[in-house]
Amino acid sequence: MKILLNNIDLNEALFDKSNIGFVPTMGSLHDGHISLIKKSLKLSNKTIVSIFVNPKQFNNNDDYKKYPRNVKKDLRVLKSLKVDFVYLPGVKDIYKSVNKIKIKLKKQDKILCAQYRKGHFEGVIEVMTHLTKIINPSKIFMGEKDFQQLLLVKRYIEKNFKSKIISCKTIRDRNKLALSSRNILLKKNDLSKAGKIAKHLIIFKKRLLNKKNLKNLIFMKKNELKKKYDIKIDYLELRNTKNLRLTNKIKNAKIFVAYYINKVRLIDNY
Amino acid sequence: MKILLNNIDLNEALFDKSNIGFVPTMGSLHDGHISLIKKSLKLSNKTIVSIFVNPKQFNNNDDYKKYPRNVKKDLRVLKSLKVDFVYLPGVKDIYKSVNKIKIKLKKQDKILCAQYRKGHFEGVIEVMTHLTKIINPSKIFMGEKDFQQLLLVKRYIEKNFKSKIISCKTIRDRNKLALSSRNILLKKNDLSKAGKIAKHLIIFKKRLLNKKNLKNLIFMKKNELKKKYDIKIDYLELRNTKNLRLTNKIKNAKIFVAYYINKVRLIDNY
Repeated sequence: MKILLNNIDLNEALFDKSNIGFVPTMGSLHDGHISLIKKSLKLSNKTIVSIFVNPKQFNNNDDYKKYPRNVKKDLRVLKSLKVDFVYLPGVKDIYKSVNKIKIKLKKQDKILCAQYRKGHFEGVIEVMTHLTKIINPSKIFMGEKDFQQLLLVKRYIEKNFKSKIISCKTIRDRNKLALSSRNILLKKNDLSKAGKIAKHLIIFKKRLLNKKNLKNLIFMKKNELKKKYDIKIDYLELRNTKNLRLTNKIKNAKIFVAYYINKVRLIDNY
Repeated sequence: MKILLNNIDLNEALFDKSNIGFVPTMGSLHDGHISLIKKSLKLSNKTIVSIFVNPKQFNNNDDYKKYPRNVKKDLRVLKSLKVDFVYLPGVKDIYKSVNKIKIKLKKQDKILCAQYRKGHFEGVIEVMTHLTKIINPSKIFMGEKDFQQLLLVKRYIEKNFKSKIISCKTIRDRNKLALSSRNILLKKNDLSKAGKIAKHLIIFKKRLLNKKNLKNLIFMKKNELKKKYDIKIDYLELRNTKNLRLTNKIKNAKIFVAYYINKVRLIDNY
């Protein structure tokens, strides 16, 4: 495994490589990342994993500072997976580019997390654009837990580059909580509460299958969850998985949720 | 620069190397570390820097968790210095050794920080023993800021190994505060307060040169500092630099201080 600390290292390592699989991460790797990496190792000649906590996608500086970092452990995990390259860029490697990019979301995209985290997806698309330019991968592997991110990045990157976005299933812990680097910020009680909420919504989702007036049922469920678990909910909505429009039909739809437990923001979809 | 993530990598990298200079660190590198590294680069054929936040030398688990970590930036710094090897061991690489070590400080060594941080130096000597065995360096570079650590490690390591401990001058910031990875934990106000305390003690030290009854002057100074800067002082003592015994003579002596600003413990010597 080669560790690339800057773009000179990176260019040297990749210049004669083809069919590169790329797994972009912010580190603090969990089994979700590992599933992406294993898929890349299977489908690509060479796999590169980046670890970069992207300041531009945090709408809150405190959140950026508190975002978990554990590069040493991450390197150990990546080595054990036999990843070919790890790219550990500094902020300057990504953003000192001559070509400044200005991303603007369309009005109809300012929904779900885009509504609650101003500038977040603009930051994600910007960093993904720079990373894709620098690495020029054939495939980029991303998880479905961040579903809105996946769709937006897929749309933007596949429009502007030859790279294909490969989406990968959400990985859950034994309590059904979707794996996230942020889970480490939860206290033990809150972690088990988050698991209960996930189970609760998985059961709720199944019950929706033969119900009508879904909008109303979801609205009531939102209030129930708030009270039952004492959480702040940004949104709980049923949306079409192709265009993310609000829907009342179960077909091609997912329930999207974002909520806070003790200041830690968690998202998921079912 | 080669990054060694485990002992297999390490043994492979070092097996044919001689005159190895070793700089043990807990990361969050500052100009103090850099001065050690530069000295090693000058005096050794190959320089290896370890980054290992040693759990055994923290007498307080919260302190261990809060200890600043910034491996990515550290790697960038080490690369720019053209260090040959960086050793990033996991806890198991250090402590899975078959030969368990039991370090016991002598009663006369249980002074200064040894008195206030139970088990700290035992942990330091233990990790230094393992590291020295694993790396087998000709020279180990350590800073004088941690003077008691330097003396204890020197005594223990040079007794049991062929490696020589090379001591290096304390590096200070422009406010005269001794550089420490912990300084990053200080708020801006507290950082400037720590600088004032350092300057205060440097002036005090000079004034001691032609004074008598130093013990009493130091006792009074301790009380003055406590009140003036609103700090908790573990110790402020004049001790001989060879054997660390309390002394009343300025010759071959240093003033040793350990104090807390807002729960951050700082040490220094003059």
